[in-house]
Amino acid sequence: MQALVKRTEGPGMSLDAVPVPEIGPTDVLIRIQKTGICGTDYHIYSWDTWARNRVRPPFTVGHEFMGVIEKIGGMVERLRVGDRVSGEGHIGCRHCYFCRTGQGHICRDVQIIGVDRDGCFAEFLSLPAGNVWNLKPEISSDVAAILDPIGNAMHTVTAQNIAGRAVAIIGAGAIGLIAVQIARSAGAMSVIAIEPQEHKRTLALQFGAAAAFDPTSGADWQRQFCALTPTGMGADVVLEMSGSGTGIRNAFELARPGADVALLGIPSKEVQLDLSEGVIFKGLVVRGINGRLMFETWYQSERFLVEKKIDVLPIITHRVHYREYMDAFALLERGEAVKILLEWEN
Amino acid sequence: MQALVKRTEGPGMSLDAVPVPEIGPTDVLIRIQKTGICGTDYHIYSWDTWARNRVRPPFTVGHEFMGVIEKIGGMVERLRVGDRVSGEGHIGCRHCYFCRTGQGHICRDVQIIGVDRDGCFAEFLSLPAGNVWNLKPEISSDVAAILDPIGNAMHTVTAQNIAGRAVAIIGAGAIGLIAVQIARSAGAMSVIAIEPQEHKRTLALQFGAAAAFDPTSGADWQRQFCALTPTGMGADVVLEMSGSGTGIRNAFELARPGADVALLGIPSKEVQLDLSEGVIFKGLVVRGINGRLMFETWYQSERFLVEKKIDVLPIITHRVHYREYMDAFALLERGEAVKILLEWEN
Amino acid sequence: MQALVKRTEGPGMSLDAVPVPEIGPTDVLIRIQKTGICGTDYHIYSWDTWARNRVRPPFTVGHEFMGVIEKIGGMVERLRVGDRVSGEGHIGCRHCYFCRTGQGHICRDVQIIGVDRDGCFAEFLSLPAGNVWNLKPEISSDVAAILDPIGNAMHTVTAQNIAGRAVAIIGAGAIGLIAVQIARSAGAMSVIAIEPQEHKRTLALQFGAAAAFDPTSGADWQRQFCALTPTGMGADVVLEMSGSGTGIRNAFELARPGADVALLGIPSKEVQLDLSEGVIFKGLVVRGINGRLMFETWYQSERFLVEKKIDVLPIITHRVHYREYMDAFALLERGEAVKILLEWEN
Amino acid sequence: MQALVKRTEGPGMSLDAVPVPEIGPTDVLIRIQKTGICGTDYHIYSWDTWARNRVRPPFTVGHEFMGVIEKIGGMVERLRVGDRVSGEGHIGCRHCYFCRTGQGHICRDVQIIGVDRDGCFAEFLSLPAGNVWNLKPEISSDVAAILDPIGNAMHTVTAQNIAGRAVAIIGAGAIGLIAVQIARSAGAMSVIAIEPQEHKRTLALQFGAAAAFDPTSGADWQRQFCALTPTGMGADVVLEMSGSGTGIRNAFELARPGADVALLGIPSKEVQLDLSEGVIFKGLVVRGINGRLMFETWYQSERFLVEKKIDVLPIITHRVHYREYMDAFALLERGEAVKILLEWEN
Repeated sequence: MQALVKRTEGPGMSLDAVPVPEIGPTDVLIRIQKTGICGTDYHIYSWDTWARNRVRPPFTVGHEFMGVIEKIGGMVERLRVGDRVSGEGHIGCRHCYFCRTGQGHICRDVQIIGVDRDGCFAEFLSLPAGNVWNLKPEISSDVAAILDPIGNAMHTVTAQNIAGRAVAIIGAGAIGLIAVQIARSAGAMSVIAIEPQEHKRTLALQFGAAAAFDPTSGADWQRQFCALTPTGMGADVVLEMSGSGTGIRNAFELARPGADVALLGIPSKEVQLDLSEGVIFKGLVVRGINGRLMFETWYQSERFLVEKKIDVLPIITHRVHYREYMDAFALLERGEAVKILLEWEN
Repeated sequence: MQALVKRTEGPGMSLDAVPVPEIGPTDVLIRIQKTGICGTDYHIYSWDTWARNRVRPPFTVGHEFMGVIEKIGGMVERLRVGDRVSGEGHIGCRHCYFCRTGQGHICRDVQIIGVDRDGCFAEFLSLPAGNVWNLKPEISSDVAAILDPIGNAMHTVTAQNIAGRAVAIIGAGAIGLIAVQIARSAGAMSVIAIEPQEHKRTLALQFGAAAAFDPTSGADWQRQFCALTPTGMGADVVLEMSGSGTGIRNAFELARPGADVALLGIPSKEVQLDLSEGVIFKGLVVRGINGRLMFETWYQSERFLVEKKIDVLPIITHRVHYREYMDAFALLERGEAVKILLEWEN
Repeated sequence: MQALVKRTEGPGMSLDAVPVPEIGPTDVLIRIQKTGICGTDYHIYSWDTWARNRVRPPFTVGHEFMGVIEKIGGMVERLRVGDRVSGEGHIGCRHCYFCRTGQGHICRDVQIIGVDRDGCFAEFLSLPAGNVWNLKPEISSDVAAILDPIGNAMHTVTAQNIAGRAVAIIGAGAIGLIAVQIARSAGAMSVIAIEPQEHKRTLALQFGAAAAFDPTSGADWQRQFCALTPTGMGADVVLEMSGSGTGIRNAFELARPGADVALLGIPSKEVQLDLSEGVIFKGLVVRGINGRLMFETWYQSERFLVEKKIDVLPIITHRVHYREYMDAFALLERGEAVKILLEWEN
Repeated sequence: MQALVKRTEGPGMSLDAVPVPEIGPTDVLIRIQKTGICGTDYHIYSWDTWARNRVRPPFTVGHEFMGVIEKIGGMVERLRVGDRVSGEGHIGCRHCYFCRTGQGHICRDVQIIGVDRDGCFAEFLSLPAGNVWNLKPEISSDVAAILDPIGNAMHTVTAQNIAGRAVAIIGAGAIGLIAVQIARSAGAMSVIAIEPQEHKRTLALQFGAAAAFDPTSGADWQRQFCALTPTGMGADVVLEMSGSGTGIRNAFELARPGADVALLGIPSKEVQLDLSEGVIFKGLVVRGINGRLMFETWYQSERFLVEKKIDVLPIITHRVHYREYMDAFALLERGEAVKILLEWEN
């Protein structure tokens, strides 16, 4: 089969013919139809510091996908050949304290497809049956391909109470934009986006943000931001989705006393923080967010989509056939795309 | 009356004759008997950066106290002359969102006695009746004088669920040592102290810590620490009470995935943190802790003391008459004392 | 001044000339403009069992109101003559454990205006300044008059997490109907009303309910109800607002395993429940809801109204001048009204 | 092998020779050493209403056990022949919403060993590997045999915050007595037992209860009970473990406003409750408790036992060889035993 493989250390990937993966008695084989390209894939492609420290080529890349079950292992229950499916790409060890207490998303021995083992940028993917998610017919294949980042946004938003609150979202990339919609549907009174790129601010407003600030626009925007919040002292909830040092520092400045701050964006280096004024005197609650809850988050995402409370299609700015994968990475490099689908049907 | 006054900007304090404070119709006048010296008082005495930025002399210093009601305002209900009392030194504005929703401890217009208005290092203190706390006879005057820091420890410990968990306490000063006892009585399975000073580690063990590590003792102590925790991956709860940059960085390293971290110690400058590994991938919940809940924390402290679940007397290492206040500050300067009582009875 | 007075034990009320109430130094005098008639007022009017056991005539009735400050006590801060206001009718003792820990709504010595002391069905009302709520200009006087029941609905809905969940509301009277709107705006994926009266079911659907069932319509409606819920096993959240025995029994039957059930409606007698199947095996969390949080709920209601997330005007089905108060009670008796405003301006 | 079998409908059980159970590739075969007899087993033995409605003979009875792994299925990881084990007797369907979100204890298709499928009162038990719990050497075999009811007590106590609170425990049978110890170790300031049988009250006091009341002792005990609580208005937390109608009614009467009430005891018929005074006006939070969390509760119990925070041996009042099982049921019938171990080694 064809697969996008990280062959060796260093920049780039290659489209190679590789064997169709084996499945064990509790696995399924999925014929991939559509996949999403994540920032993580781009890190691996461009071979940045994170990638150098984390991954061990060779392996097939990719973790956002949907497809159809092609084959099932002998002990698999309740899944059938032909089922439309997506799936959770974090494969917990199933034996540790975290896996046995419903916290598999923070298992220390987790294997992530496309990072620690072969991923979904391929014609076929082997996945444990317990990680498979059956798709309801109301969920289109384009949306199904990006249930993974929808889940990141959902987990981040619902990690704290949102109802009745003013929410700031820092970073309006794919996940941040989905979070704008989810926060509104989850009961936020208002959502304000902070994003340097104009076309993403425009999307944020289109997705229902009450305002969108450019954090590079000089000294006064923070004051204007606070003026839009109920107490005048900042947001009730801040969701940090940029991963930049500035974004994270802004997160603590834009939070009112007693606020909740969720950190999802992953900074590439250490960040210097004024914890006294920024966290302690304010009595903040700060949550580190990792992945998605298995499978509470999946049920939530399904529900928001089936009830049409969110419409994430507009974040898919490009669709590329897998043979043109280099075009996709070039688009990401130029910062022109929000979410790119990589399509695997011939 | 006699009072310890911060007369002017710069190091030092002076024992001055000042007028007995006035009381309004909703205030009480308290004849001070015993007070505690806090790190904050020492900051004001030594005139460090924090003090320079925060306080505006002249004012009477001190916020930890107990005494007897000498006089009551005309509209005060349920308090009587002669009542033994302590009191909450944070005086909220009573009108803001925080004050009206039970979060007065994070009111932005709070006035702190001994910081923003005249404090308790004096023969008499004027305090709003709503801030007064009546003392049960079971609570000795020595203990009553330090209900304020007991409350800091109580608020920090009870800010997250402690029952059944392994708790690390970083910094075994007065508050950290009280927290060791509270954590044990609040259901911790084990408490481990991290403290560079040997006499404080000894006290921590005496107060029931299962182990006490010197964080300056080289590379291996963190590994030994983790070996003592149930998952082998770190503490279930970390309480940061040192306020040092190293202490705070340790807090995030010693926390297992999914742990709760409470930050009470106030760093004097910005701290550089590895948020990716330290907070986000671990899925930590980090709480900034400010003051004490009014008055949930006071009820809790009373209960732990009345039921003899904690015995804080051993942290009172010195008792000094107010005329010898300079001896007290000298003891603090030399790092010899844990908690010093300043006594006001003649 | 004119006031609606419960003069003696037994049915009825009388419109009497009574003295304008006195105010103390921390009170304000409010010139009443609009009031709402609550079920409680009707209980007092009709002198049912609850009224016989609870109230002690003579007193002025009424607790839902808005008006303008006419006079302020000498120690009142931040309120001015002419301010448009509503207010919390539960006057806590301010000294008990509950009042001192932000739980004044369950104070055992609470005095409720119009029940335990003179109420707002009068030209003037005396109220402690701490109970006064300033009205933002965006909130119309009609809506301001019913902030009290809006608060009941708000407190009930927000007592548990609503985001992403299927919510059942039992009883679509004034509070139930407001709750339909609040639940939707607070993030419910779907809201289903259970209500025997057809005109109220119609309003529930108009307010955004996905479905409305008549609980007297025979055996099959519960099965149909469950079919509309995500698990097929019942609602994720049930809000009981009917106070009827049947409504309460339905609440537990309509809840899926692990659901949250909030009880606001007050049954007039004991209710027989199958706790084993209905609560224990299901692992439900059941919350008794009393009044409104002071003042978290008021801030929330203000926010939902100012942001136009709810529009409660349609529940005001009648407006009656106070001189025609007997017409209003007759409407309630015939079950024709949802919410009646009693107007006090001449 | 020998097994205690419920052969037919009607009272009694029989000790029969039955085939050693088969194991599938993901199961293990456990050679049983010690088992505990639960009230459920007695219901099945005596064939009461619950048993008639719930179970379908023939099947092997029993669900509290410990033993040694005799054989493992081909796909079982990390378990070995010879491991000392106990295990969770609730076998979830693994596919429903509850099983996939860490709430397997309320799965609607759960199979309970000894109730819905063959149980542990036998020389061998077949159990899915995922339900097996490895025993630490610090946990004695006697204690290991009753980890199931220890887990019920643990789950009930830890379902709400206990630290600093006054806890009432209604019903001092095996689970209630274990709960007395757990509550104390989990941070309760005081624990008060309510139990009609004198020898159980004596054990409750021996286990650390501050007081033990006989609920059949006339009118005044409730007043005395309240006098022992911090607010004078009742317990902060009530754990109902009797399952009797009177116990449940007492639970709501003994709870102070704002209290938490956990219901574990299973009433055999409907219970009549004054929800207005008992739940709604008080603003209680009531939790139905089912089974144990898989496997958070198991980790907690292990920790309390390893740290010697609880000592449950004294509740084991009798040890009986399986051939004398009829003696054991006779002891239960006469109400003389607290917990009886049934031993399976020859």
